[in-house]
Amino acid sequence: MRVQTLKRLKLKQVKTKLTIIKIGGNVINNEKTLTSFLKDVASVKDLKILVHGGGKKATELASQLGLQPQMIQGRRITDQANLDVVTMVYAGLLNKKIVAQLQQYNCNALGLSGADANSVQAHKRIVNDIDYGFAGDIDKVGNTMIQLFLENKLTPVFCAITHDTNGQLLNTNADTIAAEIASALAKIYEVTLMYCFEKKGVLRDTNDDNSVIENINLEIYETLKKENIIVEGMLPKLENCFYALHNGVSEIIIGNETVIANKNQTHTRLVLKSNRV
Amino acid sequence: MRVQTLKRLKLKQVKTKLTIIKIGGNVINNEKTLTSFLKDVASVKDLKILVHGGGKKATELASQLGLQPQMIQGRRITDQANLDVVTMVYAGLLNKKIVAQLQQYNCNALGLSGADANSVQAHKRIVNDIDYGFAGDIDKVGNTMIQLFLENKLTPVFCAITHDTNGQLLNTNADTIAAEIASALAKIYEVTLMYCFEKKGVLRDTNDDNSVIENINLEIYETLKKENIIVEGMLPKLENCFYALHNGVSEIIIGNETVIANKNQTHTRLVLKSNRV
Repeated sequence: MRVQTLKRLKLKQVKTKLTIIKIGGNVINNEKTLTSFLKDVASVKDLKILVHGGGKKATELASQLGLQPQMIQGRRITDQANLDVVTMVYAGLLNKKIVAQLQQYNCNALGLSGADANSVQAHKRIVNDIDYGFAGDIDKVGNTMIQLFLENKLTPVFCAITHDTNGQLLNTNADTIAAEIASALAKIYEVTLMYCFEKKGVLRDTNDDNSVIENINLEIYETLKKENIIVEGMLPKLENCFYALHNGVSEIIIGNETVIANKNQTHTRLVLKSNRV
Repeated sequence: MRVQTLKRLKLKQVKTKLTIIKIGGNVINNEKTLTSFLKDVASVKDLKILVHGGGKKATELASQLGLQPQMIQGRRITDQANLDVVTMVYAGLLNKKIVAQLQQYNCNALGLSGADANSVQAHKRIVNDIDYGFAGDIDKVGNTMIQLFLENKLTPVFCAITHDTNGQLLNTNADTIAAEIASALAKIYEVTLMYCFEKKGVLRDTNDDNSVIENINLEIYETLKKENIIVEGMLPKLENCFYALHNGVSEIIIGNETVIANKNQTHTRLVLKSNRV
């Protein structure tokens, strides 16, 4: 009994806590909400990483520039002009505004695309039926450099742009970037992954903001899928979550942006298997 | 005599070489020239830092968005809309394209604005006659973090955006950023600062590309100013150079982008005082 306790203690001592927070586009759109959210991020005492989505600014800019959204079979395609727009908005405007604001709150933020320090390598999505253009699927996370930044009290802030190591930037889903980084770093840290968006969690009824499903494990997830309670955009988000859990991420929380400062706030908590009590 | 030699040797051993290269907007505009330049940068064996200007893309984007250049008494003003444009173009599009291309040539580049890792702190230019808007004058360079990056084989790539540590991004002259970073790091490294632009060097006759003045020291500079040979944009550039030399930068070279790979290429070399031979 004593040995196990010591072993646990040792494990606990070896793995430092790391919180990875992904923030969705709708939170970014609202300046007041974003400010309050960034204050909360800055106050997280663990090592931390922020991953941010795009928000409506990229769509606005594309429209101002007269770019038509490129769609094939209902799926959005990233052509060169649209890649330039998302690179400008995600890696430029949003990333630097977030970094500057975190600096204001004494959080030493470091804005990154996947090209920077070769931190997230991807490849252009393979063409089967549809050519998605410059959309990236992730191959590898640059653990060593991210760890170097973290150990030197920097807070990496990732935007949804990666690269293919051959000079090509790629537009990459921010939820997936967060899941891949969390998975890669779970080897080194005790990782909590938080997906913050405009809802309080995964909803049983999308029209009822109070219908949060507070606990989901693999078994419950499969049932919810069969019952068509989890549909559309929530499916890939939860697939990302279980992918990260399978890779050793300790805990995943889905909630709105206030859950960072207040863990009593209603949210969805994901684990692989529920513990028998 | 022997002691002095040993002392020199010791100094030489202590200070590692660092090359800081500033590349002007006109080189960035030409994709072929930029590619060849970035290959040369990647092949520099010393520790290195790249600082890049903006090029015409920001002006193009501002014009596409229907923004009129804001001018007061013939000076350009950075209002909020124009700050957003330069943040998108400098920190987003150009910085990430340059970083991705350097990665392709096996140079582990890390794109930075001054807000990232709090690497360049500035303040909004003091209003005397003219309010320049969100233009930044530099207060401090974050040596420690830049040194951390360099010692870990990263190549920082700075764009012309800084911050005031209170959440405000600022548009800052890239020549000045290069001079300030060079000055700050001259305490730690043996710094060579290279200003690369579309000419082969400082010209005696702006209409004659072959009239390069190959050596300039403070005395020669004062004479050239009096004779109105150095005028307009070249004046602040050379002021930056002598500022850096006064702060311990070992050598400054002004030339076109090919001078990095070929130091026999005609260029202007600046020192504080000429050595008597």
